[in-house]
Amino acid sequence: MDENIFQLTKRTLVGTPIPNSEASHQRLSKKKALATFSSDALSSVAYATEEILMVLMLAGAAALQYSIPISLAIITLLVVVYISYRQTIYAYPSGGGAYIVARENLGEWAGLTAAAALLTDYVLTVAVSVAAGIAALTSAFPSLEYHNVLLCLVSIFALTVMNLRGIKESATIFALPTYAFIIGVFAMLGLGSYELANGTFTHIVPSTLAIQKPLTVFLLLRAFSSGCTAMTGVEAVSNGIPVFQHPESRNAAITLLVMVFILSGMFFGITFLSHYHGIVPTESETVISQLARSVFGTSRMYYFIQFSTMGILILAANTSYADFPRLSSILAQDRFLPRQFASQGDRLVFSNGILILGALSGLLIILFQASTHALIPLYAVGVFLSFTLSQTGMVKHWLIEHKPGWLGRSAINATGALATGVVTLVFTITKFSHGAWIIIIIIPLFIYGFRIIKAHYIDVGKQITLAGVDAKALIHSPVKHAVVLPISGIHRGLFDALEYARTIGVDVRALYVELDAEQVDWVQREWSKWVKGVPLFVLKSPYRSVISPILKYIEDVRDVEHCDIVTVIIPEFVPASWWQNLLHNQTAFLLRAALTFKKNVVVTSIRYHLK
Amino acid sequence: MDENIFQLTKRTLVGTPIPNSEASHQRLSKKKALATFSSDALSSVAYATEEILMVLMLAGAAALQYSIPISLAIITLLVVVYISYRQTIYAYPSGGGAYIVARENLGEWAGLTAAAALLTDYVLTVAVSVAAGIAALTSAFPSLEYHNVLLCLVSIFALTVMNLRGIKESATIFALPTYAFIIGVFAMLGLGSYELANGTFTHIVPSTLAIQKPLTVFLLLRAFSSGCTAMTGVEAVSNGIPVFQHPESRNAAITLLVMVFILSGMFFGITFLSHYHGIVPTESETVISQLARSVFGTSRMYYFIQFSTMGILILAANTSYADFPRLSSILAQDRFLPRQFASQGDRLVFSNGILILGALSGLLIILFQASTHALIPLYAVGVFLSFTLSQTGMVKHWLIEHKPGWLGRSAINATGALATGVVTLVFTITKFSHGAWIIIIIIPLFIYGFRIIKAHYIDVGKQITLAGVDAKALIHSPVKHAVVLPISGIHRGLFDALEYARTIGVDVRALYVELDAEQVDWVQREWSKWVKGVPLFVLKSPYRSVISPILKYIEDVRDVEHCDIVTVIIPEFVPASWWQNLLHNQTAFLLRAALTFKKNVVVTSIRYHLK
Repeated sequence: MDENIFQLTKRTLVGTPIPNSEASHQRLSKKKALATFSSDALSSVAYATEEILMVLMLAGAAALQYSIPISLAIITLLVVVYISYRQTIYAYPSGGGAYIVARENLGEWAGLTAAAALLTDYVLTVAVSVAAGIAALTSAFPSLEYHNVLLCLVSIFALTVMNLRGIKESATIFALPTYAFIIGVFAMLGLGSYELANGTFTHIVPSTLAIQKPLTVFLLLRAFSSGCTAMTGVEAVSNGIPVFQHPESRNAAITLLVMVFILSGMFFGITFLSHYHGIVPTESETVISQLARSVFGTSRMYYFIQFSTMGILILAANTSYADFPRLSSILAQDRFLPRQFASQGDRLVFSNGILILGALSGLLIILFQASTHALIPLYAVGVFLSFTLSQTGMVKHWLIEHKPGWLGRSAINATGALATGVVTLVFTITKFSHGAWIIIIIIPLFIYGFRIIKAHYIDVGKQITLAGVDAKALIHSPVKHAVVLPISGIHRGLFDALEYARTIGVDVRALYVELDAEQVDWVQREWSKWVKGVPLFVLKSPYRSVISPILKYIEDVRDVEHCDIVTVIIPEFVPASWWQNLLHNQTAFLLRAALTFKKNVVVTSIRYHLK
Repeated sequence: MDENIFQLTKRTLVGTPIPNSEASHQRLSKKKALATFSSDALSSVAYATEEILMVLMLAGAAALQYSIPISLAIITLLVVVYISYRQTIYAYPSGGGAYIVARENLGEWAGLTAAAALLTDYVLTVAVSVAAGIAALTSAFPSLEYHNVLLCLVSIFALTVMNLRGIKESATIFALPTYAFIIGVFAMLGLGSYELANGTFTHIVPSTLAIQKPLTVFLLLRAFSSGCTAMTGVEAVSNGIPVFQHPESRNAAITLLVMVFILSGMFFGITFLSHYHGIVPTESETVISQLARSVFGTSRMYYFIQFSTMGILILAANTSYADFPRLSSILAQDRFLPRQFASQGDRLVFSNGILILGALSGLLIILFQASTHALIPLYAVGVFLSFTLSQTGMVKHWLIEHKPGWLGRSAINATGALATGVVTLVFTITKFSHGAWIIIIIIPLFIYGFRIIKAHYIDVGKQITLAGVDAKALIHSPVKHAVVLPISGIHRGLFDALEYARTIGVDVRALYVELDAEQVDWVQREWSKWVKGVPLFVLKSPYRSVISPILKYIEDVRDVEHCDIVTVIIPEFVPASWWQNLLHNQTAFLLRAALTFKKNVVVTSIRYHLK
């Protein structure tokens, strides 16, 4: 098979096909799984502290100290969620995403709500992470700030291509920046804490800030909500259990524990040190960048932190590239999404889901001009909604299963459900006017879409089922078949079509529409000279339309002569260059358009290739 | 035949078809012809004086007096052109457009240059006239100025629809505003002149203007060039001779004379009175509007002038709607434009040319934001270029014909050619940097396009001619024909396709691609249960592609089994709503795309309609 330019580009970008027989080898070790599934969660620390401080600073410099108790509250919540999810991993070894857990235990509506929440959040994860990653870069090199939208789009393109290549290669590439980030941040926290403890560094108090809002409970809750973005991505492990090596559940649970540990340490450390270094968020430089500059100066270590932050953030988007297509595929198998999302491409990945994710997140980047702060309020509503549904589902799961220990287990999940449910509410209320309302609108639209797609497939299934059909009623051959060949003149391009017409039928008629009376005699003479055995019918056209008389004739053959099927053979020229198409086949195109949906009429183009 | 929504809209806007037998009735009386063909020329007076004054005012208020000698020079030129064109009308009774005259006498290059010049100018006529017409409206109602682009586009749409209805109806509609404009302007000129002669009105001298440029010969020539836009449209009559009533040439010549008389009178009168009323062009109000306000006050007569000016200007575009499609049709018959421009629509008008003209002029309105002053420098280069070519062609015509009186006749046309040739040069030089350069680029591009289109048609003609072909070599039946039917499952939608496959061939094979080993047994069992006499081939797909194994199989049938033709029957679902197409036929679409250009493979869709 000769490859065309599209196929060649695909092979170059995406790689050669991987056969089915290699499918089982595509499993991940714990270290690679940590890199693949934790980049989203860990990278959240790059912006979570900043989002807390941005809210608190509205109430003046003194309010910034509340970042420390808020971060501790978030870590407590994280631990509750970890314990809750650990149970899910063991209960659903084949992948316990919120959709599956909610649907199995709470029914279709809850499942679809979780699915809608997750899909929107996967798209937002890509947009937020990439935008924050590029912000890390522009903090270090302010001259690039003007190009941030372009840089984000290039990153999304690169991620999309990498993921189309397949997950094993991804894990290898992605391990490096994740571990670099962990090392870099802990080095920074270590040196910073040492200097503080040692007394070589003393607390910097930021200069007074204009107080724009009073320090109310609402403001503290809003800061807490913003900080909860640190927890986004924690659910990734429980979705991806099947790609862990054996024993899958145990390996996944260990990976999740390690991840929660690292995440808590980094998040608290950054918040704590930022406070003592008196860091206040600004438009042009991220909090992490300011902190790294304060600890290391603008040294090599500073650039290491910035590059690894950018690296892990851009790769964090990869969690979504693993989960979005997988969830789409599950939804498509359940017929809530179009069928083409269900099938794996020739590199053992769900290509359609990957492409859609890339397109949607690119769109968000353009709409929100790559601003992390503008995107954050949309983010995390969905995450916490799916946390809540998933854990509520687990409570139901234990109640139904009723095995030993069910009481304790359901209590743990109930605590998780309650905590995340309250946070979902807090998030919705405090962030509503900043953008959360968009999500409140989008999620029901998704659910509506899922349901009409399913309803359609069920309806079609009923229409085309063979159950209860009499086999004899299906075929009524022999049929009365007429072949019609409209011609515009007598030339070489006609004879392939004529030959084909004779091949597929016995009753073949050529049609010629009379537009110019002088031409008719010549055409009839030429026809009888060149063609034997096929009658030529000349159709009058008082209104100079070429299409209408042909349509009328075909309808008469079908309805008056009672032919069961009329095949219309349309001779078409295939020019050597695309623009030459404008010079040919206009009538063929119109005729095809007019005939396509006529009952019992089959349209077939026979192409004559021009040089 | 049941009409669809498109056809219904077309009938409502355009009217019912007119049969060929009514073609000869579509002729115009002199009065209607004057309205149809003179609106372009006459309406030019609405902006020609203003364009002269806009150049002169650069040299200060005192320079404005030169408008009077400049307008007299332009009228002299107009008379020369009239005498010259009068000869063309008698020499070419079947329509003496610049293209025909130049091509017949000066050869293909000159003809194509004239054609390119005319086509660009027809588009510009529509854009300039409509923009100036809307300027007349916004002069009277300044609050509408903000919407001028929209108003222009609506006018172009209305014109396009009217012209698709056909020319006789057009003439009836168009007579009214043309005659209203003539009456209104002469009433204004009459009252203005009477007041001047009577002494009830005395010369107003405009207050001093900033002198931006010295009063050089170049500036005077630039003012003259700008004023020459008054002459655009004069050639319309000679293009349209065949639609005049018998005797065509004589009626056309009389119409042209009347038109030149009226045009000269209005143009000189407006220029003269504008000078005595001390009118200086401004951004927000046209010169005609200022003059009418000065003569009549803001009375009913003022609004009558403004509305009739708007009316004739918008209808002036109609000259192009008559000529552009007609010239396109002639060019298409000569194979310099795609064939579809050659044929008349079902209302006896050249629909394709009308639609293209509407689209292009709408585009110009958007690009130049409906500014007459921005469009004017592009205008008239083409008109004068085609004047020159046409009259040079006439000189050659008389020289070749060599009938009695040839010397005098060729001297007249030579004078016309020389005069308009000089003006073309002056125009190009003085307006070059203001936009004329665009036309200098576009005209050669048009000529290039004409020539490659013709070269393509000639090449195709050679490829498909039957001259010298042996009749026996054209048909080699019986052919070896295989029919292939790819299936994705066993359901009701399949049986129409199966029946059709059996109708058109004896060697029918069904293909099933194995993606899931568990499905294969079930499909084979169902197949043998429901279908008799057609073998089912199961194709392996190690890379999970549905398309590749089918392509490979078809190529083998063709190349290894040596079938002459392989027909691939693709069963497709036709859903009830358009959006449901997204849920079906993805594979059918890809398969069709992969097969369409394969040699000796014919692709036929059999549609199964869903409810």
